[in-house]
Amino acid sequence: MATATEQPSSRNAVLDVEVPRGLKGVKVAQTSIGNVRGQEGFFHYRQYDATELAKKRTLEDIWHLMHEGELPKTQAESDAYRAQAGQLRLAAWTQVEQLVPGLVAGADKDKLDVLGTLRALIAAVGAREGWKPWLDLSAEEIKEQCSRAVALTAVGVAAIYRVKHGKDMVAPDASLPHATDYLRMVTGEVPSAEKADALEKYLDLTVDHGFNASTFTARVVASTGADVSSAVVAAIGSLSGPLHGGAPSRALAMVDEIGTKENADPFIRAIFERGDRLMGFGHPVYTTMDPRSIMLGEIADGIGGEQVELARHVEQTSLDILEELKPGRGLKTNVEFYAALVMRSSGIPDELFTPTFAVSRVIGWTANIREQVTEDNRIFRPSAQYVGPEAPQDVPTL
Amino acid sequence: MATATEQPSSRNAVLDVEVPRGLKGVKVAQTSIGNVRGQEGFFHYRQYDATELAKKRTLEDIWHLMHEGELPKTQAESDAYRAQAGQLRLAAWTQVEQLVPGLVAGADKDKLDVLGTLRALIAAVGAREGWKPWLDLSAEEIKEQCSRAVALTAVGVAAIYRVKHGKDMVAPDASLPHATDYLRMVTGEVPSAEKADALEKYLDLTVDHGFNASTFTARVVASTGADVSSAVVAAIGSLSGPLHGGAPSRALAMVDEIGTKENADPFIRAIFERGDRLMGFGHPVYTTMDPRSIMLGEIADGIGGEQVELARHVEQTSLDILEELKPGRGLKTNVEFYAALVMRSSGIPDELFTPTFAVSRVIGWTANIREQVTEDNRIFRPSAQYVGPEAPQDVPTL
Repeated sequence: MATATEQPSSRNAVLDVEVPRGLKGVKVAQTSIGNVRGQEGFFHYRQYDATELAKKRTLEDIWHLMHEGELPKTQAESDAYRAQAGQLRLAAWTQVEQLVPGLVAGADKDKLDVLGTLRALIAAVGAREGWKPWLDLSAEEIKEQCSRAVALTAVGVAAIYRVKHGKDMVAPDASLPHATDYLRMVTGEVPSAEKADALEKYLDLTVDHGFNASTFTARVVASTGADVSSAVVAAIGSLSGPLHGGAPSRALAMVDEIGTKENADPFIRAIFERGDRLMGFGHPVYTTMDPRSIMLGEIADGIGGEQVELARHVEQTSLDILEELKPGRGLKTNVEFYAALVMRSSGIPDELFTPTFAVSRVIGWTANIREQVTEDNRIFRPSAQYVGPEAPQDVPTL
Repeated sequence: MATATEQPSSRNAVLDVEVPRGLKGVKVAQTSIGNVRGQEGFFHYRQYDATELAKKRTLEDIWHLMHEGELPKTQAESDAYRAQAGQLRLAAWTQVEQLVPGLVAGADKDKLDVLGTLRALIAAVGAREGWKPWLDLSAEEIKEQCSRAVALTAVGVAAIYRVKHGKDMVAPDASLPHATDYLRMVTGEVPSAEKADALEKYLDLTVDHGFNASTFTARVVASTGADVSSAVVAAIGSLSGPLHGGAPSRALAMVDEIGTKENADPFIRAIFERGDRLMGFGHPVYTTMDPRSIMLGEIADGIGGEQVELARHVEQTSLDILEELKPGRGLKTNVEFYAALVMRSSGIPDELFTPTFAVSRVIGWTANIREQVTEDNRIFRPSAQYVGPEAPQDVPTL
């Protein structure tokens, strides 16, 4: 143990900085990775509008942007990076084949959590290969581990899901785009171009989004000098929280329960009459539309079909009733509604909504880890205000 | 995904709080669990001096204090809690037996990391049993998972170590004290009372120590509503960092290299002549002695023997030379030196120094998780200062 290298609080005692709860609005670091300008309804990856990137470039190009610091400049560069991602998935497959069956074997299918098993998988790979603390590695070695964590997430989620449901795992096809191959490894079938494109755009839009709890977690763990797998596994843990990424489809579950267009109005009015909360609608804070919502809504409409039509009808009915009962508030639909709709439309099973979020966000986490682990790193070691009984009290003996 | 429940930055924009790097001295929460008063050389668990607790009470009593909010009041209460800890170890054994061999199988013994494998084990147990987000659990259910995580850490570390080295795993003996049984499961032999006592006091002294990086990590992850295993696994990740708990025995490694008392003076002078840093000595900040150092030093001396004598000789030689070359600074020995000495003297192999730190600290992490996950919980979702190129720039197409 090295508690001596923990920052002693004697030095802290003179600082004693008071901050908003949850560190809200507290600038804990500098970053070049991106930013969310909520009042403008705008967020960006490095210097580029994230929605523009999703329209014009591939997921691998965005991965390249986040980790190489710039977009591929030529088609050849772009193709090479895509091919490299394919090779990374193949390499991940070796570990996945070896570890996933054992992690799932004998578990109760109804209980087994995919995201939790993904944490176990990535922790096990890091442990078995003895991934060293980044303090002992070169920048190139750190980057390589980050790339491997990204590939392992996609291949791992798909394999865990399939083994959980008694299906054969599907090996990666290195020739396919990352998003297409992920969808294929999940469903066992090469998806239509339309579905693959819809999923890819969802992934594009969720690579990074400021210092959310999971990204912050990754940076806190990395700040201790720990290895890449420690930081990624910790971030997945934060993502699983219902207050962050872990409550993916409450609104869509309501749509399922409503079932038909005719049921929408009475169902939603009954919610208000019972005094219950309408899930997924009426976000209290966004003053402008979340740019992810706009784009994901358009993608869902593009796919269309009965399910999307019903969901859109329920959405409009909800907004109409909200406006009727709480007029002038301009309440909006949460982004999770559109995200769930796009994922389901593209063929992702509901239980993989949050794990699929991890498939894209791991690109952002690892970019943040790499930004954290420079010579300028400082361990996150805050302070707390002790509010218990006065100390010391005599220790009673038995 | 529920990115809509991430705090949108539109609200944050008005706050923009600047804080010291690494959140140093920033009070991120209120706590009744304990505090470190560095300038007084004093730290406490709840209202009791931690060193007094280590002298007068058992590890299980401290566990009781941290999780029940008070010390056992009678011997019967104390005995019952000890017995319960034994039952928890037995329950953990079922999972450990099932999962550890598979996590270790086929791995390169020289690479396999014990702490990383422990992360995989705890993640796998949580995933396989479908541990729910604490938001969906009662306080009693959360406490039960915390207790299980504590037991799983002790049983898991010992089993992983033994399987890694080709030895049979040792099942828990529920009748033994937690520290004694941990040592027995590691070494395969019931330890002497002296060794067990030394290790127990080390564990007593390292249960909690303010908002260090791993404790803070546990609280950040828990703040998202994630399940207990997510938070514990994340904390273990932070603990593994060399800037926190992951660089356990640099000073003791130097003692090994020195080998004999006669070598100490020339070896240490040579370090200074080369301009190298003397590891483990001369902590730049503590103005008083770390109370853990004082007590652990006494324990080591109590055990005595050639190894302790050599270490103490090297220590004194180091301090003498430091005083000679940097007079008046009153440089001290780091606590890690004494901690490593006590662990080694009690029979803990060097590679388990940091994992053994986890065996005690998990009691503190879980106490912190339980304090975090109340109705008063607020997700940790800080902000960052974007310092990259002005955005948006046009996205170039290929």
